[in-house]
Formats: sequence, C-alpha cells, structure tokens
Amino acid sequence: MKLKFNLNYEDKKSMARCGTISFNGKEYETPMFMPVGTNATVKTLSSEELKDIGSGIILANTYHLWLAPGEDIIKKAGGLHKFMNYDGPILTDSGGYQVFSLAKPKDISEEGVKFKNIINGDSLFLTPEKSIEIQNKLGSDIVMSFDECIAWPCEYDYVKTSIERTLRWAKRGKEIFKNDNQLLFGIVQGGEYEDLRKHCAEELVKIGFDGYAIGGTSVGEDKKTMYKMVLYSTKYLPKEKLRYLMGVGDPIDLIENVLRGVDIFDCVAPTRLARHGHAYTSSGKINVKNAKYKECFKPIDEKCNCYSCQNYTLSYIRHLITKNETLGARLLSIHNIYFLHRLMDDIRENIKKGTLEKYRDEFILRYYGEGYEYK
Amino acid sequence: MKLKFNLNYEDKKSMARCGTISFNGKEYETPMFMPVGTNATVKTLSSEELKDIGSGIILANTYHLWLAPGEDIIKKAGGLHKFMNYDGPILTDSGGYQVFSLAKPKDISEEGVKFKNIINGDSLFLTPEKSIEIQNKLGSDIVMSFDECIAWPCEYDYVKTSIERTLRWAKRGKEIFKNDNQLLFGIVQGGEYEDLRKHCAEELVKIGFDGYAIGGTSVGEDKKTMYKMVLYSTKYLPKEKLRYLMGVGDPIDLIENVLRGVDIFDCVAPTRLARHGHAYTSSGKINVKNAKYKECFKPIDEKCNCYSCQNYTLSYIRHLITKNETLGARLLSIHNIYFLHRLMDDIRENIKKGTLEKYRDEFILRYYGEGYEYK
Repeated sequence: MKLKFNLNYEDKKSMARCGTISFNGKEYETPMFMPVGTNATVKTLSSEELKDIGSGIILANTYHLWLAPGEDIIKKAGGLHKFMNYDGPILTDSGGYQVFSLAKPKDISEEGVKFKNIINGDSLFLTPEKSIEIQNKLGSDIVMSFDECIAWPCEYDYVKTSIERTLRWAKRGKEIFKNDNQLLFGIVQGGEYEDLRKHCAEELVKIGFDGYAIGGTSVGEDKKTMYKMVLYSTKYLPKEKLRYLMGVGDPIDLIENVLRGVDIFDCVAPTRLARHGHAYTSSGKINVKNAKYKECFKPIDEKCNCYSCQNYTLSYIRHLITKNETLGARLLSIHNIYFLHRLMDDIRENIKKGTLEKYRDEFILRYYGEGYEYK
Repeated sequence: MKLKFNLNYEDKKSMARCGTISFNGKEYETPMFMPVGTNATVKTLSSEELKDIGSGIILANTYHLWLAPGEDIIKKAGGLHKFMNYDGPILTDSGGYQVFSLAKPKDISEEGVKFKNIINGDSLFLTPEKSIEIQNKLGSDIVMSFDECIAWPCEYDYVKTSIERTLRWAKRGKEIFKNDNQLLFGIVQGGEYEDLRKHCAEELVKIGFDGYAIGGTSVGEDKKTMYKMVLYSTKYLPKEKLRYLMGVGDPIDLIENVLRGVDIFDCVAPTRLARHGHAYTSSGKINVKNAKYKECFKPIDEKCNCYSCQNYTLSYIRHLITKNETLGARLLSIHNIYFLHRLMDDIRENIKKGTLEKYRDEFILRYYGEGYEYK
C-alpha cells in the first residue's frame, strides 16, 4: 500500500496548491501539518488522540529509533504502524538533522558521519546506505535520503562542496533503496544561495525521487531568509511531486511557505510549546502560566472546538502545568496540534477561494497585532 | 445532590458486604476502589479516561489543593467537579495524613498542626476547623474529619492520648461543618490496640457521622497487623454506614479487607507503580522494563480488555517507559486502575455467590504462586 499524491488545484496568484494523499483506503488533504513523534510517540498523545485531532501523516525520527528500541525490533513488531498502533501515513527522517545538531564537521566524511550515541557514549557510524536500510526496516511510508543539514550562515564554498556530497549520498541511498511500499524523497540543500538550491534541486530531479524535501531551514536564519530558501527550492521542483519543508511549524511560516509551493510541514513546536505551557490561540500565542489565568474559567480559546477547549478551563490547565502534571502538557498538545490542523484547513479553503494572501494579512493582524514586520 | 449509600447484601460467612452509592443520577457499586487525584488529576489521566475505565469515586488531596491552586480558586471555578471536569463522586482527605508524613510531634498541639509549606517553606497551620472549611470550599462529596495518623509501631500511651485528641478534633470539625451537599466522615484511629480502636469507633459513632474511615494503616505495618487494625475497627462500626479504608490498594489487601467489612479503598499504588513501569496482571505484578519484554508483541495481559491491552504491546510500552515518554505511564495507569476496578467486580460477584474466601485463595495462588504466606 504505497502512498499516492495527487495535485488537484493550483492557485492562480501564488505557488500555493491543494492535493490529496491516498493511503490505506483513506484520503488526506494537502497542504498538511505533520506532528512529530520522535520516539514513535507524539509526546503525551495516543494514536487514537491523533486520529481524533485529525492528524494525517506523522513523523518519526530514524536516529532515535535506531538507538532505541532498534530497527530490528520495530521490524519484528510488523513495522512502525503496528509498533505504535497508528494506521495513518508515517514519514521517517534520515538522521541528517542529527549530522547538523550532534556531529562535528571533522566527523563528516565521504563515506558517512561519525556520531556519539547520546545514550551510552558509544561511537556510531551512519551512512546513506545505513539510513535507508534502517528506514526500510522501520517500514515508514515516506523515506528520506541521508543529507547534510548545513548551519546558517554558511560560506558559499562550504555549501557548494556539501551539496555535491549530499547529491552523491542521495544517489547511493537510492541505489540500495528497495521497498515497493515506500516512497523515497530527495532533500534540497544549498543554504541561501539560489544557484546552489537550483543546482541541487535539478540534480535530485535527474536522479529521480518520489517527492522532494527542502532542508537547511529552521537552523537559526531569519524568516525572510527562510522564505527565500524555500522559494529557491520549490521554483525548481516538479509540480506533480509532494514538497516537504522540514522542521517548520510557526503558524505564519505555514501560510507563507504554502504561498511558496510547499505541501507538507513538520515541527516539534506544538508539543514542545505545550510542555512549556504555551498555547496558540486565534489572537496569538499565550503563556498559560501567566498569573492572569489563575482565575480564568474559560477555555484556552473560546473559538476552538478541540477536546481540551471543550472540557477544561485555562485555570485548570494552568494549575496542571504549574504542578508538572502531565495531563497539562497533554491538553495543550492536543490544543496546539488541533490549532495547526485547523489552520491548514483554513489555508486549503483560502487557496480554493483564491484568497490566501488576504487570509495571510488578516491572520497576521489577528495573531501578531498591528506593526508586525518580517517581510 | 448528596451522595447516598445503600447496603444491599451481607455475606453469610464473612463481614463482606455489597452496596450501592447513588450520586448525581448514577449508581456505583461497592466494594469499590478509588483512584487518587492528588492535585485534582489522577496522574496522567483525563476525566474521560477515568469514566472509560469505570471509575466511581475518586480522591483528591486537601493539603495539596490548599497550597495550589488554593480552595478559593476551586470554589470560584464552581467546585472540584467543575474544576477538573469530573461528574462522578469526589472524596477529599483531611490533610491528616500530612500530619503523619510532614509534621514533627512537637508541631502537633490541641489547636492544630504546624506545617512547612513544601512549595516555599512558609509556615502553615492546619486545624480541624480549617480542614473542614477548605473541604467545604472544594465542594467534594465526602469530607474527612481532621485526624492524627499515628506511626507504626507506636506505644499504647501515645496512641491513647492521640485518639482522645483526634476525637476532640472530629467533634470540633463536625460543629463547624455546614454543607447540605456533602457527607462528613469520622476516622477511626487506635493503632493495633483493639480497646483503643473500639473506644475510638464508639465515640465517633456517638458524635455521629455519615460514614467512617479506618486510618493509621499502610504506614509500614505488616499485613497481619493491618488486617487486625481493620477488623478491630469495622467490628464496632454501624452496618448501614459506608466504611472507607484509607491508603490501601495492594490487590490481596482489597480482598482481605472486604472480607473484614470494608466498602471503599484508595491508594496511589496503581498510578505510582505505572510511573515506575510496573503492571498488575492476572498472574502477578510484572516489571515492564525487564529485557525479556523487548520483543514481546503481546499485550500486558492477554486476559485484559483495557484500552492499553487492546491497542498496544508490551514491547511498545516498555520502549515508552524506558524513553520516559509519558504515554507509557499513562497506558500503564489505565491498565492498573482498570485491573483494580475489575478485581472489585470479581469481589462483588463472589460476595453475592458466597465464594469470596475461595476466590481469595485462588487469587493468591494465581497472583503470588505456591507458598505465599501472610496470614
């Protein structure tokens, strides 16, 4: 049961597009936000809750699952879907982001990347082939090529050298990739340099992948730069294939990057913010721990229909969060993911109506207030 | 909507009994196990999950809620039920257990007990009147009298002096208790001394309460002593009133103490064990972290119909627990509380069939194996 993507509609005024993902007898609409389940669990949530919130694809981290419980155990369990009891589509990353966050430049060679096992300090070696082999065993529906996620800012010459290696890695991965039930995606890198992004995208397309990701964003760059990086990538990608912007989930970034042709997004923000007591609302992000919510017996957001807002008050959730009761983080995670899913609903509706730019402007006014500047 | 208790059936061979609690248009059967929601949340679980598991009365801790968020906020929220969105009955303890666990003997006077606020080190003073006043504001359905929970072992003379004060405290509490929607319970203390337990029970009955609790158990005593303490209390309590054994939840203790005439129990064990990776099963308690479960793709207990056992494997739950993912503690909490509720179902069924002692013997063999000794 290979996942299928159909492009249904393209905005006339922007690069925004609507599509459908068919998987396992069900259909999921794009643009879509994918919650992150690092350890084969979207932190604090059950698979049933994800379904209730309306999640489609979810993401799991290859690097973490490689270390624990190990890809062989997940394979024996019947793959990630059975292991975590999630019947929607699952995307696994490549471990490439850990190249960026855990390895030192000297640990990166043509062959692969040397890591320290964060659990026991053991030396680990991840190669493009190993990454694909692990993901084959995990049995996700979308597999990512192994890449180097470059820091920002980064010198042109380093980026140029790095993307050539990333392209060779993508090719090596594709050569050993063998699973009729999975899709394999290439990852466009190239920093903020249009010629490098273009070159990387075009070379990946020549190798031929089932879809394309945009990497190297959300690594400290400003929003203007991020949007440029995305545009420099989507411009050179084939229309009929899924486009995935990695690690981006700030509400405004979802809208802006849909306008630049992105279909799917992932980000740990909604669950991480939840654990720290933050909630998205229709009029901006709030810190639930704020003393003013002590006696606020209203839901997080009166306009929200999520389980948390239908059943619990800000006063109660504030109490749970301040007492480190895990139900607090759970209720906020439900709310925050639900918020992003409903934002994507609005985005799709406005693409179809041809009003996404107007929606973006209204959203900014409503969410950030007057005077917001990022363009 | 005052909670009502009806005694329906008494075992001919033992002191076991079956009853019905009517509350808010619903009926709940006794004997019953009550999960503990210290901070107005049964750790890791939502109110909806408690309902799904089949919970009836749940317990909340007066001492903790007094400190945070404070009884006035909960009163403004409309009481504990609205605050935590639980429509079943709620029992609050008196803070008396904290006398035992947090105060030093020199801090206990006729007037009340001096505490240190565990949050900020402030000096706090809790009196019988204050305890009742807080519980009135919390709006629980069963309110406990303020008592001194004595350590074990404890000298006869100290216990004798202490229960006289506990009786004076109970009387003072009753005098200021005023809430037509709540029941007030007295607490039988007296250590392991039958004459003191008898005296305490009889004097409490003279004052007159809506139900009676048995305190001073689960403080380090062996099972034989605990069962004696319970029997020395229930023997002298009126049949038509609810009897609550405080802080006891080991499966075998539930059976043994039902045989000694107890109706309701509370204990943090099912949720605390869950957080440490332990699960009750029909053939004994297991440690889910055990390496042998790494590749065990079966549920915690194949005979169990709980949400966790219907949807997740031991291998997955072990992975979650070892990675400190809160879903792991949640799945085990659901399972453990469900297990105790189903054990109570079995207990009630066997009372009605007149086979509870036989069930106890079979349970011991099944749960502990041959050679278990505690009598």
